[in-house]
Amino acid sequence: MNVTVLGLGLIGGSLLRALAARGHRVTGYDVDGSAAAAAGFPVAGTIPAALADASVAVLAVPLPALAGVGAELAGFPGIVTDVTSVKGPARAAVAHPRFVGGHPMAGTESSGFAASDPHLFDGCAWVLCLEPETDLDDWLTLAGLITSLGARVVPATAAEHDQAVARISHVPHLLATALSGLLEGQAQAATLAAGSFRDGTRVAATRAELIAAMCGGNAGPTAENLSTVIGALSAYRDALGAEDPIAALTPLLERPGLLRREWPATTFSTVEVEPDPAALLALGRAGGWLTEIGPVLVGKRPETDRSGS
Amino acid sequence: MNVTVLGLGLIGGSLLRALAARGHRVTGYDVDGSAAAAAGFPVAGTIPAALADASVAVLAVPLPALAGVGAELAGFPGIVTDVTSVKGPARAAVAHPRFVGGHPMAGTESSGFAASDPHLFDGCAWVLCLEPETDLDDWLTLAGLITSLGARVVPATAAEHDQAVARISHVPHLLATALSGLLEGQAQAATLAAGSFRDGTRVAATRAELIAAMCGGNAGPTAENLSTVIGALSAYRDALGAEDPIAALTPLLERPGLLRREWPATTFSTVEVEPDPAALLALGRAGGWLTEIGPVLVGKRPETDRSGS
Repeated sequence: MNVTVLGLGLIGGSLLRALAARGHRVTGYDVDGSAAAAAGFPVAGTIPAALADASVAVLAVPLPALAGVGAELAGFPGIVTDVTSVKGPARAAVAHPRFVGGHPMAGTESSGFAASDPHLFDGCAWVLCLEPETDLDDWLTLAGLITSLGARVVPATAAEHDQAVARISHVPHLLATALSGLLEGQAQAATLAAGSFRDGTRVAATRAELIAAMCGGNAGPTAENLSTVIGALSAYRDALGAEDPIAALTPLLERPGLLRREWPATTFSTVEVEPDPAALLALGRAGGWLTEIGPVLVGKRPETDRSGS
Repeated sequence: MNVTVLGLGLIGGSLLRALAARGHRVTGYDVDGSAAAAAGFPVAGTIPAALADASVAVLAVPLPALAGVGAELAGFPGIVTDVTSVKGPARAAVAHPRFVGGHPMAGTESSGFAASDPHLFDGCAWVLCLEPETDLDDWLTLAGLITSLGARVVPATAAEHDQAVARISHVPHLLATALSGLLEGQAQAATLAAGSFRDGTRVAATRAELIAAMCGGNAGPTAENLSTVIGALSAYRDALGAEDPIAALTPLLERPGLLRREWPATTFSTVEVEPDPAALLALGRAGGWLTEIGPVLVGKRPETDRSGS
């Protein structure tokens, strides 16, 4: 397949490397593509030149640049995807008729082409958005490309994705930050703090602008899930004010503790899935993913049904 | 010194081993002291027998047993201390005139004498409570005993201790639990969850009764600090509803992020401290601790002053 990667930072650069390593024809483009060119990759001088022979274009640019670069693909006849971490706004930003949103859940602590790694996507969950307007063949083409890199393709709507990342990443960053704030003026607490504080606050060390960009870029779902957490914490606080706080608190903690002890799932079934949007989305909602896109679609799903309570 | 340890679980057993290893005369007592006796330690058959020749008695029993065992020490002429994790209730529970509350901040994931370890206290912070009624000589005697085990003696009032552990341990457990609750019915989020969720929820896997006992046993300070966190989270949620959520959120995250990046302190000054309660408590409030109790008191304190904002 002939793939063009627009934006050659950590994700785009790693994708260029991973695709080339699997024998795909790749072309890169970046405002400054010199590092990729120096590493021996074909780098085009303009976006139209980069797109000339491509069947797939990957927008590997940050969300604020997505609409601008996306607009330059107006006449591009191929499939377009992206790698940004919030999918509702990406869907709104890219008007291309063959756009399919994507999000590789791969580490991003480093940045830039220098940090790129052809193995970045090995085993990683890669959300691929399936909307009413999505062309299923385009979706399957991308799913095949992504599984060929060793990633696990998770079918989801943009709304489902954004709810999930609010729960598992954006809200956790805000909780870690609020907890860190308890050290204000508390040198003694800082000296006594150990494991539970260290782990509970680790991601609060992330730069404030990055946390704000993540959470603010997914403001609705983040606020909604933050409200759920505030509600739970308020119930705990009420229980602490009860005549017997231990008895009042215990039942509130049991179910969340069980959910945590059962996470992550450790046993999975191999499943075949119909090439049908409803079946694919049902697999994603059950915590499953696709591993092979061939004559049949093969995936995995957790054996424990966690979808109910 | 002749030390009796009442209660031979993880902490009491480790203390028996650590004291014996440093050449102290030790006697143990437990309702079932057979494991310690089998390990070669002198174990008395009754509490009075265990106390017969002791100059220090350590109550190494859980908080609910503290008042009962403490009452059996009514006529004991020596110094009494404890190792429970909440100091206001311990102070209220033990009526002995020479009681000095203590709390070794040592790992307790395992339990029982079988898990005991003479090195459990190496380098650990050990809070030793200094109240208006505390006899300074008794306090210094215990501080010398504790530093001889390689632990760092942190002077604090019971109220200061209970505030600190609410911030660094009890509230973190409740945040981790509330965050885990977001997985309810969310198999897809569970599949996508990774580092920030894993670390932010780790301690939620603790048994609900244990978290409830910790937090409920320190209900006032825990509720107070939980309110502070709820206030911060509510401010973040309001910012997420602003016209420009990123701009509204960023300034709220900066100071907590800085506090986390500066934690833990890495540079310390060696200090000499006057044997005076006010000076000792000031050292503790500055994040410091004692390392040597001799003709002069020697301690350490962080070079960065974190006590202000």
